[in-house]
Formats: sequence, structure tokens, C-alpha cells
Amino acid sequence: MSLPALLRLLGLLAVGILLLAHTSEALPQPKAAWVRGARSRLAKNSKWHSKRWTNGSACVETSPPDFSAPKENVWSGLTNWEAASVTQWLFGQADLNLTKSEDAGEWDNSLLLVELMLPNKTDVLSYVDGAAAAPARYAHVVLDLRATENPTYTDIIVGPLPVVNGTTCWEPLEYPYTRKTQGSIRNLDADSDSLYTEYIFKVTATIADITMDLWGGTALGMDNDTLDVWGLDPVWQYDNKLTRWDTFWNYPTDVFDSETLLPLGLYFKSDVTGRDPSKWKLEGWLYNDIFYKTTAEFRKAYWGGNFTKLGANVDGDWARTDQNGPTLPMDTATPPRAVAPSGARYSVDHARKYVEWMDFSFYMGFTRDAGLALYDIRYKGQRIIYELSLQEALAHYAGNDPVQSGTSYLDTYYGFGPYAFELVPGYDCPAYATFVNTSFFVSETTHTHLNSVCLFEFDADYPIQAHTSASYTAKTKNIYFTVRSVATVGNYDYMFSYEFYLDGSIKVQVRASGYIQSAYYANNKDYGYQIHDFLSGSMHDHVLNFKADLDILGTDNTMELTTNVPVTESYVWSDHPRNTMKLKRSFIESEDKGKILYTGNGRTQYRVVNTAQPNKFGEYRGYRILPSDGTIHLTVENSSNLVNAANWAKYDLMVTKQKDTEPRSAHPYNGQDVANPVVDFDKFFDGESLTQEDLVVWFNLGMHHVPHTGDLPNTVFTTAHSGVEFMPINYFDGDVSRQTVNMVRIDYKDGNVSHVKTFGQNEATCSVDLSKEDFDMYSYKGDVVIRKFPYDPADPYYETDAIV
Amino acid sequence: MSLPALLRLLGLLAVGILLLAHTSEALPQPKAAWVRGARSRLAKNSKWHSKRWTNGSACVETSPPDFSAPKENVWSGLTNWEAASVTQWLFGQADLNLTKSEDAGEWDNSLLLVELMLPNKTDVLSYVDGAAAAPARYAHVVLDLRATENPTYTDIIVGPLPVVNGTTCWEPLEYPYTRKTQGSIRNLDADSDSLYTEYIFKVTATIADITMDLWGGTALGMDNDTLDVWGLDPVWQYDNKLTRWDTFWNYPTDVFDSETLLPLGLYFKSDVTGRDPSKWKLEGWLYNDIFYKTTAEFRKAYWGGNFTKLGANVDGDWARTDQNGPTLPMDTATPPRAVAPSGARYSVDHARKYVEWMDFSFYMGFTRDAGLALYDIRYKGQRIIYELSLQEALAHYAGNDPVQSGTSYLDTYYGFGPYAFELVPGYDCPAYATFVNTSFFVSETTHTHLNSVCLFEFDADYPIQAHTSASYTAKTKNIYFTVRSVATVGNYDYMFSYEFYLDGSIKVQVRASGYIQSAYYANNKDYGYQIHDFLSGSMHDHVLNFKADLDILGTDNTMELTTNVPVTESYVWSDHPRNTMKLKRSFIESEDKGKILYTGNGRTQYRVVNTAQPNKFGEYRGYRILPSDGTIHLTVENSSNLVNAANWAKYDLMVTKQKDTEPRSAHPYNGQDVANPVVDFDKFFDGESLTQEDLVVWFNLGMHHVPHTGDLPNTVFTTAHSGVEFMPINYFDGDVSRQTVNMVRIDYKDGNVSHVKTFGQNEATCSVDLSKEDFDMYSYKGDVVIRKFPYDPADPYYETDAIV
Repeated sequence: MSLPALLRLLGLLAVGILLLAHTSEALPQPKAAWVRGARSRLAKNSKWHSKRWTNGSACVETSPPDFSAPKENVWSGLTNWEAASVTQWLFGQADLNLTKSEDAGEWDNSLLLVELMLPNKTDVLSYVDGAAAAPARYAHVVLDLRATENPTYTDIIVGPLPVVNGTTCWEPLEYPYTRKTQGSIRNLDADSDSLYTEYIFKVTATIADITMDLWGGTALGMDNDTLDVWGLDPVWQYDNKLTRWDTFWNYPTDVFDSETLLPLGLYFKSDVTGRDPSKWKLEGWLYNDIFYKTTAEFRKAYWGGNFTKLGANVDGDWARTDQNGPTLPMDTATPPRAVAPSGARYSVDHARKYVEWMDFSFYMGFTRDAGLALYDIRYKGQRIIYELSLQEALAHYAGNDPVQSGTSYLDTYYGFGPYAFELVPGYDCPAYATFVNTSFFVSETTHTHLNSVCLFEFDADYPIQAHTSASYTAKTKNIYFTVRSVATVGNYDYMFSYEFYLDGSIKVQVRASGYIQSAYYANNKDYGYQIHDFLSGSMHDHVLNFKADLDILGTDNTMELTTNVPVTESYVWSDHPRNTMKLKRSFIESEDKGKILYTGNGRTQYRVVNTAQPNKFGEYRGYRILPSDGTIHLTVENSSNLVNAANWAKYDLMVTKQKDTEPRSAHPYNGQDVANPVVDFDKFFDGESLTQEDLVVWFNLGMHHVPHTGDLPNTVFTTAHSGVEFMPINYFDGDVSRQTVNMVRIDYKDGNVSHVKTFGQNEATCSVDLSKEDFDMYSYKGDVVIRKFPYDPADPYYETDAIV
Repeated sequence: MSLPALLRLLGLLAVGILLLAHTSEALPQPKAAWVRGARSRLAKNSKWHSKRWTNGSACVETSPPDFSAPKENVWSGLTNWEAASVTQWLFGQADLNLTKSEDAGEWDNSLLLVELMLPNKTDVLSYVDGAAAAPARYAHVVLDLRATENPTYTDIIVGPLPVVNGTTCWEPLEYPYTRKTQGSIRNLDADSDSLYTEYIFKVTATIADITMDLWGGTALGMDNDTLDVWGLDPVWQYDNKLTRWDTFWNYPTDVFDSETLLPLGLYFKSDVTGRDPSKWKLEGWLYNDIFYKTTAEFRKAYWGGNFTKLGANVDGDWARTDQNGPTLPMDTATPPRAVAPSGARYSVDHARKYVEWMDFSFYMGFTRDAGLALYDIRYKGQRIIYELSLQEALAHYAGNDPVQSGTSYLDTYYGFGPYAFELVPGYDCPAYATFVNTSFFVSETTHTHLNSVCLFEFDADYPIQAHTSASYTAKTKNIYFTVRSVATVGNYDYMFSYEFYLDGSIKVQVRASGYIQSAYYANNKDYGYQIHDFLSGSMHDHVLNFKADLDILGTDNTMELTTNVPVTESYVWSDHPRNTMKLKRSFIESEDKGKILYTGNGRTQYRVVNTAQPNKFGEYRGYRILPSDGTIHLTVENSSNLVNAANWAKYDLMVTKQKDTEPRSAHPYNGQDVANPVVDFDKFFDGESLTQEDLVVWFNLGMHHVPHTGDLPNTVFTTAHSGVEFMPINYFDGDVSRQTVNMVRIDYKDGNVSHVKTFGQNEATCSVDLSKEDFDMYSYKGDVVIRKFPYDPADPYYETDAIV
């Protein structure tokens, strides 16, 4: 078969994926082996509890039998056809005046997003908890309205679905936002192409002799440019104008994304107010902390003979992640690895994106803005968390230069969905994991990340329970289940792991790797360490906001705090007052007290309880939110960059009353008007009672990152991590991990074992062929794209886009 | 072979272990298979880098070749013969008037401990770093001097070794202690046998009718007792007398150690001043928060007709760790597990207890008091940490009853060494781990815990590095190395893990499982949750103090703090003052500032640096101490129980100048005189300069533990954890994990992979036979004992002792 023919065949097969990724109906499982991801090579076996191997024979790994989620997944996205039909319908609406993205210029209106409008919780509960029909489906659409002097990003809602001409309509989407401007916010990016062609390259041309002299290169928009130019984010918005600072970077000289390690230290300021590039104006140059008001002044100084020229950051092996340095002792021998002798011990409804593992169950959702989200997380049939989802990730930099100082990335602007790339089995997740596809809509196409969410069980390197005496030892394996996705938003790789444990606890963990965004070293001593020749590890805070909509035995919940407090106390039995401690219990009674900074010394437990349904001992059943892995909030107070755009970053834990009008703490276009963003989180706090109400907990993870030499070439996941645990507290009558059979008790005395209890666990006596376990690295694909307008499901193609 | 003959044979083999455990010379490896622990079944192979398998064939796991540590291990303990000869010599010293432990009564002097006197750091450095001879060896001996009205525990030093009659001498050991009383402290336990026979059982007999009525049992010191009696710790020491409170507990009815879950709620107070039991006196009874001054008063109330009788906590499945409840879905299929296809990729000198893994190396020590310790931890040949060791573990309870309120266990009193039990492969550590024996001295015998320290490599469930773009993905495996021991100090099981990572970081982690010590529920609402019928989960703080004697490029070190601080700052390039942040750098200049509470929001980095040896960019090379896993200090202020006995518990991080006279922050007999303990940690702080001095960092791990129903029957390791990381910061020029070959780079475009780089890693294509991996649970042994006086190495026997 010729290569083009083969590609076409693969293309046809890819349709299967897309149907799978977008359907909310129970379609037949696609037949193509690679569609289901790395696990599809496994045999199916519906007899789960059979001991299927004999001594020494090959382990038989099986995928779980096909099974169906109890309900439709109302969060999993539009079907392929829904997205196509909404797109088509929108192009038919003359009042929208849409131009296809590939044809659209800066003065055309275009379509940025067609996605499922996430249903209101109050509409969903009667469906997932009762017999009601699923809520009506709508599409959430984002329009890029640029055919105007005042361009906007505009959120609208289209529906109900399916599209029926004459019935279907659109209206501005305003209700989930605190800003009440009919779903519209100004678009500061409308002229982003002109910015370069009509402005930046003209500016940089005026000093091409200087860039050539300093760094041996130019930034002119030409193919042979060795310099890149870009700057702060968001644009400065004050004094009734828009101000940019841009700077020069060396391009990498190899495949590696090292550009953010190659700043060059020359900055220029521009007034870019309005849509007329001819009115944009240069307002000065900065080099080595000296500000020059005009290009002439800068040129004069530069060529004047007394100018101090500093060095350039140049690409090299120091900036590349490939193996480097002497081979470590014994490192060429195969290291330990995890294997799954009996395959998956969980069930996945691939069509509905629903998972069950050891009495836990949940649905998965996926959005352009924030990527993976989990819904209706239940344990033993009872919902614990309605929604557990990333809301926004802030990377707030500081520095003595205006670009670093002015950078406060709000990453949903770029989106986590578009950059949740294909995972590498054996590296990102165990080779035996189950991989799931995810999709997002862009430019009238749907992109599907193959194998971009992994699901796996793992045996921790420590047990969950241990006790030993002189007569027995009892140990229980700590088998846990993980759902993971990794999103690379430009330079940074965020790994999101949701872990489920046998004791009923759930851990949310974020780890960061990838390239730092660094700063030019000059005069930056107060803002980071010098980490390479002319490089500063620009200090920044990562703050990632999550929503945890807990439902403890229903939606009538209360946040209880219990704090260990030192006391001096007298007792009927004590001769003297005693210095000891007590447990102080209190409640967060209203939103006025709903913004929480963690107490020092970890003295306070934060627990969502249902006070109306105490356990038989009168204690409130609940789940505790335990910051377990170094959590932070934002260092900067009243950030000049952010104003009101990320008010969720100021605290550790925030509690609000659940409202359908407050579904998210952030919006991807908050940076377009930082003083009056689409969602100003502070406005959620309007004094409402939090006593036995439906509560939402917003919590932050993150790291104060002051990069050091060990961040070169990449930050490492080992030390850049943050996490919280949701742990049951007085929720069950005892430790539920006692249900597992993967425990042992050995009774012994005087060197003899009298009894070994293994509780029915299955001891593997088979052999695992590791060669079969390994992922074929040549099967890595990236993203599959399918056109939506015109809808062309039969002609998919491969294309992966990244920011850097 | 008959069973006795087999046991004798095993006994002879055990001699090998003991020689191994105690020798500091390079002896031949013992031949018996089980002596080396679970890994001894492995073939040896000195050709490490050979690719030794072919497609589909069985994986060949090999132990590393025999190899020798570069130096003797000067911390690993006395040789078997040294311990025996010191013991014999001591019994020859008439002035000590020693009686063999098994013959000793309460008015005899006996020998509690014969152990290596850990050498002074200043004496060791010239040996481990240079060509000097190893320091002279001495024995540290603890005497129990009870043949007096004023009994003492007395620390002495005996040496130099080997013992030569006429040359060897003993002297009081005082220099490492802040208390200057010739190594002696009063012994409050001298009459612990009489306490029961001459006092407690007489008291409990006076109310046997009541205990029978309330709980259907008695505590009379008889075989058919169903009740146990014990109380607070340490004994109250004020008003010039000694006061005890004791309480009743139901005995467990099965093998499980559930007694600490079975309190009964009746307490009695006793004045136990002096050594004459006839003068000890009952001072009252407490039940349901009512205090009765005399037994008569209590009896009158009890039988008076209006007495409120509360229920009893009774043993049952709720208190047992065996499998309980419905089997979880698919749980009888074998779960995932880790395997080591090519065996150990590290080297262990079993005789010298020395380990090398991927450019890390360290020696292991083991003491009665604190169990496992690591010494001379080097990375790439350069020492990072001279000593990393547990110092003490405090469990400080509180409650409305005097026993809980009065309990502040200082666990080295019991010792971690004696209770660091045999580990279970596949549960405590991966089945493929290397296991090492440890030993301690007690009652003129040496006990060896078989397989009580494990060493293993593990592939984390996440990579150490990740970055993906539209044209490549690069991932690096996170293979780390762990050293672990588990000590069960009575009810509680502490798991200590020291983890080494490819980026040069080291993590210290403590997890807690086992049984909680609970309280009777009555009137304890302010001190914990009610967790069972009549049970309160008695609130307590676990605080574990560790010593980290860092040496960064030598011993001239400084503690630098860098803190992220919010600032409002003007710049030459800014129109307005900007709200941003800065990095504030400062030093801990003297011990006056050496007691540190972690700043809120994790804003401060604590780093040990060498300011005299900056890197080429002028930054100080160092290691950061990163509290990563929920660390705490003690809630209680000026504890009535502790007074000065645990002053290290009051802060998070403490820095002192290293002195040979301040080797430990605690002493096992600090509780014998809490006002004037053997080591008062506060006295270490005498204003000395900490600028470019040899620094010791004392840090606390722990948990505020407010047990809830999920702690029944055992606390789980998943949520009870605490840890710090030591991470290199500007220590190397880049991330050293780039040295590993276990990484991959995949270059791809448009669905095609153009290139896969694997850097020489060995892809396993063999099969792992899991049946061979499994540990034979029937081979669990417990401890081997060998008599030292008279020395009888040919007649070892098995006996394991525990506290509960």
C-alpha cells in the first residue's frame, strides 16, 4: 500500500475517534486497534474473577468488559455532528456576518469556539440523581467580532440542540459572568498581525544595525531572522491607553523549545491604543536599566562609544533536555517498572467517558479553557464531589525589567484544552494505563488529542496500613487509581493528577516541568538568581485555582473548622492549671467569612460536613480538605498587572454558595479588561449564608518559583509540586480500606509462622512479557483534525499546534 | 531432619547474621541464602552493562557484585565480640556491682545498654575525608543503678576498644549532655514491678466488685484478668512529689493489638513518691468527670443508687485490621506491582552497611534509641549531609481525663531500635528490594531484626521531566532510590523513608499507621471526635525531630533565607509605582535567630549555602530545606507534661553550630526529670555565630492528629504523612537528572514520527516470572537473639519483643 493510501486509510479510521470523542450516546466500540489507545491490544474478558493463569505461564491482561455508565455524560462535549451543525447554522446568521477563520482578516468577524454549554447544576441534579430527563443541550460559542472600531470577544449561547432552523436561536451569554455587558469584552488582540507587520518589525528595523552588532542578528519578519520579539501579557491598561513592552529573544537553533531561556535584555515601550497602526508610537528603549526616550537617543548612546554592551544568551546543550553528562553507574540496566499482571481492574465507558474503580465512579469532561474536569464523583454510590475542575492558572512574574514585571499569564486565555498533548506510555503514565482521547474546537475544525488522558492503577511504594507486634504483622497494599492529563501551555508543562485511594480519599496534585520563562540577568538580582551566563531565573508565582463542588450526603452542607489551640485549663482532677490544648470547633457561617488563609502550623482542619446528618455518635460526616503538598497563594498584593482579573489568587481556600450564575472563578478573556473582567471573583462574595447550603470550595495550588540552575534546561516534577487531599472524616464508621483483599496477616512466634491469612487475594504466578508491555514510540501521532465547516468527517488529517 | 535439629542448624547460620550486623570489618559474605534477606536468591553478575536477555526469555535479576565501601563504617555499631567483651569487662568491675538482668531485682544494679559510642564528628572528618586513622572506638553503656535509695540511669563510656584488662576503663558520660550530673539522672521506673504487685493490684482489688459490675472483669494480676491498668507518661513531677494517674482498659480478645482502643473511663490518682510501696497512697478516683477523694467516697457513690454507669469499649471486628466488608469490584484480580527486570542497580556493602546508587552514597547506622540513621551522604563524591537521623518522637495528647492529658510519650525512652521489626516484602517495600538486618543490645543479649531495613529503586508514577511541543515530546523517567525502616513503638507504626532522586534531591518522609491511643468518650468533646460507642479519638500532636548536619562544600556554611515579599516599587521605565514582588535575601547570623517558624504562604526558602564558594555566576551553592508534605510543630505551649524535656518541638526548623558536645537534641531519659532533663535543647542556643560555621539543622516532621472514624481500626499511611525535601539550589550548573539514559525524545510531525532517541537505555524484552518474585510469607521470622554474657554465639534463638 502506498503511503498516501495508508494515510487515507488511517484518516478514515480517525473518524471513529472523533465520533467517540464527541458522542454522548452509547455507540459501538470502534474497531481499529489504535483508536482505543495503547490498551486496545488487550484481550477482552468478561469473567473478571476467574484465576486465569497457571504457574509460569504468560499473564493474561484483559481490558474490562464493555459496560455502560448509569447515565449519559452531560458534561462531555458536543457530538461531532452537533458541533458541525451549530457551526453551519452560525454561518447562516447574517447578523453575525461571519467569515471563515482561514479567510478572516483583522476586520472580519470569526468563530473562535463551539463547545458544549455546560449545564447548570440545578438542572443536572434531577437527571443524575432522579428520573428526570437530561437538561436541554446548548452550544457555547465565542465570537471574535472585529469588523468594528471597537472589537469584542463575545460569548453567546446557541440552542436548544439539535439545531432546527427556525427554532434554534442565539442569545448573548451573560448569566454566568459578573460583568454584565451582554457577554462581550473588548478585544485587545484584534490587530495582532498588524502589530508585527505594521509596527514591531518597523521599530526593530530602525535598530537593525544595533541588533546585528550586539547579537549578530535581526528581527525583521524575514525567514533568516535569528531574533524573536515579544513582550508582556496582559497589555497595560491605564491612563486611558494601551501600553506594550516588548523584548528580543534569540531563536533556538535546534528542535528544542529553549527560546524562553534566551532573552537578550533590550526592551521597547509602545503606545498601541486604537486600531490604527499608524497612530501607534514608540515611547522609549531600555537597556541595562537605562531608559532612552527615543530611538535617536538610544542610537546616539549606543554608538557614542561609552555604551556598556552586555552578553547574549545563546542556545546550546545547557538548554536542551537530551541526555547530557557521564552515564550514571548501572543506569543502562533496565530500571524497575510497574506491570499489571491481570490488566485493568476498573471499568471505562469510553463513549460516555465514565469510570468505575473500587466503588469510586466519575464522569470526565473536557473544555478548551481548562482541559480535563471530573464530574459526579461518587464513592459507594454517594456523590462526594459534583465537580472537580481546574479554573485558571496564573503565572505572575516580577523583575527589574518591564517585560518580566508586566507578565501575569492567565493561562486559560491560551487554553489548557488545546495543549493537552498525547501522552507517552511508560513515561507520563505506566505502559499498561488506559488512554482516552480528548478534543477541542478551533477555526471550524475539531482537533483530537490521541491518548491524552490516562487512567491507571498503581501500587504505591508503601502500604496503606501496617502494624506489627511480637505475635503478628498485618499489612495492606496501597493500590490507588489515577486520572492524569498533561497540558503544555507554551513553555510550561503542567501535570494534573487526580488520585483515588482505598480509604476513600482523593488527592489532587499538580506538578510543573518544561521550560521556565527566564529574564535577562542585568539588574535583576532582587528578582531571582543568576542561573546562566547572562540569565536570571525570573521569580514568579504559579497559582492554580480549582473548583471543588462538594456534596456531602446531598447539597445541604456547611464548612466546619476545627483548630488545635493551646490553652491553660483547670480540671476537677488537677492540682494546678495545666498547659495543654483543645479542639476549637467553628463554622464558616456566611460568604463574609468565606475567604480563608490557612492558619500557621497546619492547626486548622477545613471540612465540608452535613450538620443535618450526623453519624450515630453525633459527629458530622464530611470530607476534609487537607493541603498536603505545599500549597500557596499569590505573593503580590493588589497586582498592577491583574487588578481584578484574578481575585481568586489572594487566598488559599474560598467558599461560596453554589449558584448557576457563578459556575467559574475565571474567564479566558479576563485579561482584556483587567479592571472590569468578565468574571471578577470577588463579586461572588455577597454575604450569603453558607449554613447548610450547596457549597463550592475554590482552592489554590501552586509554587513560589524562584528558578535556580537546577531548572535548566527544564524544571523537574520532583520538587515543583503542590497538592491537596480530600479525606473522609467521620464519614464512614471505620476505615473503608479494610474492604480490600490485598492484605496479609502473618501470625508468628519464636521464628515460626503459625498462620498466613491472605483474604482471597490472587497471587500472580504468571510471567509478564515486558517486550509486549512497551509502547512503540513510532506510533506517536499528535493531534487529528477534522473540518467542521464544511463538515468533512471523511478527510481527517494530522496536525498539532503548540504555543511556542 | 527433626524440627529441633533444623532449628539448631538455623541457629548456627544465624551467627553469620550477627557477625554481619556488628562487624565493621570487611568479612566474607555469609553463605546462607536467607541471611542476606530476600534478595539473596539472586544470581551475582559482575558485568553490569551487558544486555543479558533475549527476546521473550526470562529476565535475569542479579545482585550487584560484591564491593567494598571506601572507608570503614565508623557509625555502624559494635562488633559482636566487642559487645560481648565490654559486657564481660563491666561485670568484672566490682565498683559497678552489676547483677545479670534476668536475675536483677528492683534493688540490684544492671546493664541496660552496650552500644557503640558514636564518634565525634571532629574526630571522624579527618578519617572519612583524609588519610587519618579511624577514631578510637568506645562503648556507650547505660547502667540501671537501683541498689540505692536514689536510683539512677547512668550513661558511661568504656574504652578504648578492644578491651584490654588494665587499660580499658570507664568514666561517666557527660560531655554530650546539657545536664552536668556525671551522666546520671534519677530513675522513676526503679520500682515498676512493685508498682503493680505491691500497689496497683491492691488498689484495683478494693473495687473488684465495681469493675465486675461495670465491665464484667477484674484487674488483679491474675491469669484470668480481662482488664489491664496503666496510665500517664511521664509521671507528674511537681510539688516535690511523684504523681500517677492510671486507668482501666479491656484486654483484646484476639491476636490484634486493639487494647489502646478499649479504654473504660475510670481513673485513679496515686502519690508514688519514694521507694517504699507502703508509703504510696491513693489520692482519689475519677469517673465521668466526678472526682472522689477516697475509695470509700467512690464506693459509696457507686453503690448509692444514683451513679451514672457509662458503657464499655469492647473488642470486636471494628478493632481488627483483617479484611472486613464486601469485596470490592475486581479486587480479587491481581493488582499492578513493580518489578525489577534487571535486579538491583545499586551496590551494597553489607558488612559496612554502605550503599551507592547513581552517584549517591551513604553509610547506615542503627541505635537503640532512634533506629536507622544515615551518615556521610555524598553526591558525586561530595558530602551533602554528614548525618541525617531521627532524634526523638513526641506524641503529646490532651483530654478531659488525666491520663490523656498527662500523656506525652517521648518514644526514644522505649526506643525505635528495639521495635524496627522485620519487613514484609511486597507490602512494606517492593518484593524485589534488598533487605538488611539491624541489631540492638538488651539484657546482655543482642537482638537482630532480620530484613528490617529495605533498599530499593522505584519508578515513580510520574516522570521527572516532561516537555512537549508541536514537533517533539521529551520525557525522563523518575527513578528514585529509597531506604526505609518501620518502627512500631507500641500502638503506632512509624515508617521512615529516605528517598534519593536523580535531580540530586533527598526526601525524608514519615508516615504513621497502627493503632491510635484513644480516650474514653465521656466529657471529651473538646479534645476529639467520638469515634465509636464509648470512644473518643484523643487529639494529639506527633512531632518528630530530625538532625540534618549539612556540609555544603565543606563545613563552613551559612543559612540563607530568601523570601518573596510584596512591594510597591518605582522603576526608571514605569509611569506609576507598581505593585509587584521582590526576593529578599538574609542570613541567620547567630543562634539567637536560630529558632525558626515557617513563614505563612511558604514564602521563604531555607537554604544552607557556602558563601565562600559561590558558583560562577556569584550565586551561593547550597541545598534548600523544603517542607513539602505538611510539617508541624507542637500546638501546646509550655507543656505541663514536658517542661524542658522536648524544647525542640516548639519550632519548625532550628539551626545551631555543630559541636561534639551537642550531638543529639534529646535523650531517652529526658522524661525522668522534665524540669532538668539530660538534654535541654534550648541550651544549645547560646548566641554563637552561624556565619560560615559547621551548621546543624534540626527539623520537625509530624501531624496534628485528631483521630476520626477512619482511624479505626488503624490509622492509614495515605493521609498521615509529613516530609521535607533537601533540594540542590544553584548547587550544580544545571539539572543533573540529564545524566540518566532513561529518557526518550520523539520528533514528530503531521502524524509521523521522524526520530526516536533513547540514549542507550536498555529496553527490557524479557519476561518476569511473578511467582519467583513473591515472598514466602512462611519465612517470616522476627528477631534472632544471641546471648552476650556469657557470650554464646553458637546458641541463638528466635524471640521478638514488643511494647504492647
